[in-house]
Amino acid sequence: MTKPIYKGRVITLNIDTVTLPNGMTVDLETIRHPGASAVVPMKEDGTVVLIRQFRHAAGGFIYEIPAGKLNPGEDPLSCAARELEEEIGYRAAAFSLLSSIFTAPGFADEVIHVYKATGLTPGKQQLDQDEVLDVIEMPLADAIRKIEDGTIRDAKTIVGLQAVYIQESMR
Amino acid sequence: MTKPIYKGRVITLNIDTVTLPNGMTVDLETIRHPGASAVVPMKEDGTVVLIRQFRHAAGGFIYEIPAGKLNPGEDPLSCAARELEEEIGYRAAAFSLLSSIFTAPGFADEVIHVYKATGLTPGKQQLDQDEVLDVIEMPLADAIRKIEDGTIRDAKTIVGLQAVYIQESMR
Repeated sequence: MTKPIYKGRVITLNIDTVTLPNGMTVDLETIRHPGASAVVPMKEDGTVVLIRQFRHAAGGFIYEIPAGKLNPGEDPLSCAARELEEEIGYRAAAFSLLSSIFTAPGFADEVIHVYKATGLTPGKQQLDQDEVLDVIEMPLADAIRKIEDGTIRDAKTIVGLQAVYIQESMR
Repeated sequence: MTKPIYKGRVITLNIDTVTLPNGMTVDLETIRHPGASAVVPMKEDGTVVLIRQFRHAAGGFIYEIPAGKLNPGEDPLSCAARELEEEIGYRAAAFSLLSSIFTAPGFADEVIHVYKATGLTPGKQQLDQDEVLDVIEMPLADAIRKIEDGTIRDAKTIVGLQAVYIQESMR
């Protein structure tokens, strides 16, 4: 049984009455989210392209990889390519899926498809009016250090950067 | 300005009217969450201790590291130690903070403090009634492969396992 609480612009909140595999029945506050795609843009010299974006829920500007919500019916790969160009002004010759992650499975169904993008060429940046961000390029190894020292804290961003670092450095 | 929509057992939903750094004013659906701690339990032989847990929002059982919400006023490290013993029945001689991550900063303020725990000794598992999970041990390298093949999909779990792998393998 689902009791609708709120249907918003981005998220929907329901109270779902759920019978667990152990037979217990519980009411669970559940956020439904359309999902998103995110991209680690990787240049041939090992530079990654990040953004510093204002996030109200995080209390200020945070480092992220380019990302955005899926439009209704949109393919995750198309979304990744669209957000890459809109947010940082690059197109990519190749995308490879790193992981499709549950960001907060305790209360939300959001899945973010995290890609690596290579073969970058200039495109046209087109920010939405409510997107406030700077584009910042740095060597991948510097980005890994910024994870370790607590400067980079966004989950999808860490997942993507660490996955590429493990791929590039260790295989 | 904050318009309260729903205050639940775990999460609170507000509509916050926010003036962005570019001067634009927007209404943002914002989830407030108490935060959580999570732990990568690492044995001396390189084995990590994971759980397979039922998550309604994820549509079934998923691999995770032990984790749980902060109690009111609880220190993140104490929470990590408590959840480690309650969920998998281990105590640890040492904890080190890997990262404090924003799981979904587009709509939620949740921060998860992700630790590595070493020096594991047997303790007493005590699951909550609504926790349905199995404990699964595997070599860290196998866990990294399960990230790469899409079997492990939980964001905090991937962040923690990759960070420990990079620490252990590359430094």
